Amino acid sequence: MGYTRMSAAEAAAMIKNDETIALSGFTPNGVPKAVFRELSKHAEQEHAAGRPFQIGIITGASTGQSVEGDMAAAKAIKFRAPFSTNKDFRDCTNAGEIDFEDMHLGHVAERLRRGFYGEIDWAIIEVSGLEEGTSTCKAFLTSAGGIVPTIVRLAKHVIIEHNSFHHPTSHLLHDVYEIAECPRRLPIPILQVGDRIGREYVEIDAKKIVGVVECCIPEEARAFTPLDPVTEQMGHNVADFLVNDLKRGIIPPEFLPLQSGVGVTSNAVLEALGQNPAVPVFSVYAEVVQDSVVKYMREGRIKAASCSSLTVTNDTLKGIYADMDYFKARITIRQSEISNAPEVIRRLGVIAMNTALECDIYGNENSSHICGSRLMNGVGGSCDYERNGFISIFTTQSTAKNGAISSIVPMCSHVDSTEHDVDVIVTEQGVADLRGKGPLRRAQEIIENCAHPDYRPLLRDYLKIAGKGHEPQHMRSALAFHDAYLTKGDMRLTEF
Amino acid sequence: MGYTRMSAAEAAAMIKNDETIALSGFTPNGVPKAVFRELSKHAEQEHAAGRPFQIGIITGASTGQSVEGDMAAAKAIKFRAPFSTNKDFRDCTNAGEIDFEDMHLGHVAERLRRGFYGEIDWAIIEVSGLEEGTSTCKAFLTSAGGIVPTIVRLAKHVIIEHNSFHHPTSHLLHDVYEIAECPRRLPIPILQVGDRIGREYVEIDAKKIVGVVECCIPEEARAFTPLDPVTEQMGHNVADFLVNDLKRGIIPPEFLPLQSGVGVTSNAVLEALGQNPAVPVFSVYAEVVQDSVVKYMREGRIKAASCSSLTVTNDTLKGIYADMDYFKARITIRQSEISNAPEVIRRLGVIAMNTALECDIYGNENSSHICGSRLMNGVGGSCDYERNGFISIFTTQSTAKNGAISSIVPMCSHVDSTEHDVDVIVTEQGVADLRGKGPLRRAQEIIENCAHPDYRPLLRDYLKIAGKGHEPQHMRSALAFHDAYLTKGDMRLTEF
Repeated sequence: MGYTRMSAAEAAAMIKNDETIALSGFTPNGVPKAVFRELSKHAEQEHAAGRPFQIGIITGASTGQSVEGDMAAAKAIKFRAPFSTNKDFRDCTNAGEIDFEDMHLGHVAERLRRGFYGEIDWAIIEVSGLEEGTSTCKAFLTSAGGIVPTIVRLAKHVIIEHNSFHHPTSHLLHDVYEIAECPRRLPIPILQVGDRIGREYVEIDAKKIVGVVECCIPEEARAFTPLDPVTEQMGHNVADFLVNDLKRGIIPPEFLPLQSGVGVTSNAVLEALGQNPAVPVFSVYAEVVQDSVVKYMREGRIKAASCSSLTVTNDTLKGIYADMDYFKARITIRQSEISNAPEVIRRLGVIAMNTALECDIYGNENSSHICGSRLMNGVGGSCDYERNGFISIFTTQSTAKNGAISSIVPMCSHVDSTEHDVDVIVTEQGVADLRGKGPLRRAQEIIENCAHPDYRPLLRDYLKIAGKGHEPQHMRSALAFHDAYLTKGDMRLTEF
Repeated sequence: MGYTRMSAAEAAAMIKNDETIALSGFTPNGVPKAVFRELSKHAEQEHAAGRPFQIGIITGASTGQSVEGDMAAAKAIKFRAPFSTNKDFRDCTNAGEIDFEDMHLGHVAERLRRGFYGEIDWAIIEVSGLEEGTSTCKAFLTSAGGIVPTIVRLAKHVIIEHNSFHHPTSHLLHDVYEIAECPRRLPIPILQVGDRIGREYVEIDAKKIVGVVECCIPEEARAFTPLDPVTEQMGHNVADFLVNDLKRGIIPPEFLPLQSGVGVTSNAVLEALGQNPAVPVFSVYAEVVQDSVVKYMREGRIKAASCSSLTVTNDTLKGIYADMDYFKARITIRQSEISNAPEVIRRLGVIAMNTALECDIYGNENSSHICGSRLMNGVGGSCDYERNGFISIFTTQSTAKNGAISSIVPMCSHVDSTEHDVDVIVTEQGVADLRGKGPLRRAQEIIENCAHPDYRPLLRDYLKIAGKGHEPQHMRSALAFHDAYLTKGDMRLTEF
């Protein structure tokens, strides 16, 4: 037997205006691509014919150009959650065209189960292989875990993209596990980074599967930004801080699993830790595995990694597939509600390292909005880790736009991680260790250790005019840095 | 055999300048009182003699007048964490005299274990009874669980206050359990609100016990503020919202455990739920049990309650002690790292209800700081529940100070719970259901349903001047409400 094969265009034609679609994948990896390449064209045709066509798209994390980029450009997204890194999507969202809910990635499956998003009309998932049973289908996931078991269970219909770009043994990397509905849940039984608690495949009710689309499409992986001296310095600052905590006995001698967000700074941190002989062989418990993890795993510096996605270049992905015997024993791809589960993160004592857009002098952090209003990417999974991690570190370059923006400001223009969840701030200038300190002592650390020297006098001046209080803020001047940037193009021109 | 008995003054005299002291208790309940009544006098004597005397005080939550009130007034607190509700303490902290770290209550034991606060010189704990063994002492806790097993293990020395105000059978209410050190932890095996996973007593290394102080001191419980029509309306709004979610199948038919913060609004919510016949018999998984829980438990409307403290009046406490056979089967007092554990809160699907000082039009929330600067109380355990609860509700009266303050503002002057963790805002005006909505739709709900009608035109005007963006904010006007209050005494006089 076999399920109905159909073209991507035929699959796309079944999707109607105003429906809600949930997808496999986490970051651009593991996201279905074939159907959406047709769906954005279909949307444009519908619009040209004067008919409305907008859908809701819910995914594990960000996606790629074929999904949120082209669909946003086609004005075909009505609602979107939980995260995006795409420029076209960002432009449309900042123009007020898309209803976008920026959400903790560890909450997505949970909130879908709770029914907060109404009915899910379609689940579209990418697989590397299928066992086409009469009552249930066993589907093999590709390079990401995401929210698949939840969406195939909740959706009315399922479309499968069988993408032969992925190796048919990709399932050997997966541990598929869905948390049960409330109120009858059990503990998530992960005690070590590499523990496998589920199955290698996703089970799908065969009745829901309306079609299988065959394709061979590479991942829409983003290019790897090379390190520069500033990001390298930030990486070394983080590594030195952790080595010092190890020496002081704060971090136990066997070290603790690391989480590091997506992007160039995360790579810089992993490079610095990988190269530092004072750091023992370590593990990674994160939402993504990037190229540097794979590199140091090959070198024996990283012994195990758990993630919800191999957010790697296509070359690195092919390299993993080619060495499956080595990597299947070392890498585990999980659902995002497991990779980002507070329960597991706190139990394992994960060291959380994420990237800030800006931090204020009291330790509040903004990951998502430029000058309060304009979406950059979103919080992603950073908050799942910062509150539950053993130590919560945020890194940011002390300035941006050739010095016209200070990443250390009097008050964040938007807050994603509060002072209660930020233990350490690291810039290329240095490290502010905020643990066990009240606001005034935190301000001292952050201004003197992390702010760029050009901005320190302004920040000290602000503290003076802010006056008395547990956490002094001056309501008329708190956002003056941002106002100066918006009106004069340079925060150095701030006047209080 | 027996341990050394000493007077409270003798115990207090052992404590030296600059030492760090950790205490039993959670809220004013279960906190040691006798030694501190002497210690604040001792501090004043030292200061009068020209000698420095300031200590660090770390507790489970807030304490009472004898600890943070009198010690703050005596200028004898150097560092304090994690929470306070005391006026004298607040005044000194807002004057910049005390280094206070406002912290998630579920993190306190965890951060002590991690060594973020250096050495703990003394643990002072209140007990209702002791088994005075040669190598280990079994201590019976009184009306709170707090952080006791952690502090008696980490502290160099232990002082015990044996307070005969408490009934010697108080231990029957307790489930004493400490989470292990990283990296070798197991799941917290709580599957139901009432599950007991530990012991009825705390074990203390007898060598550490330097003395036992006998006393009989009532709890320094705060008076119960009676409900008024406004708080009653807020309670009914919450109850109606939950009943509607129950009817829609969002909340399962057996209902879910409730958490409700400390204070009059929490009592109003519990009263409204207790009286609403559409709400099934329910359970409470919270950090405190207040009087209303005990009342509805006696009436059979609440079947089980888990907490870290019986934050009740002394009359209610005596009533529980008098009916121990009834209550020991229904109430469990836990450590605060268990009552507030993300792992357990998410597993049980707790409905989280907390109180806001102010919320902004996008759903960010401030629990702690008036006009950004002045500490009110602190975050307490609210954030432990909001992010991990099944539904996260914040309640606030729409105005304060006879209408001069709007609790709904363009931008919060301080953020404790971000938009990512606030599902529902409830005022006496109505309910804003923010689930599955982006910022602009959230603003619509909050302004039209929750803001006071006097402030709606101003808030709509703000949205216009804020312009475009994913979450539009105008850097020069975002805090204009607060500035108007500080400079003109009334937010209604805001000009953008």
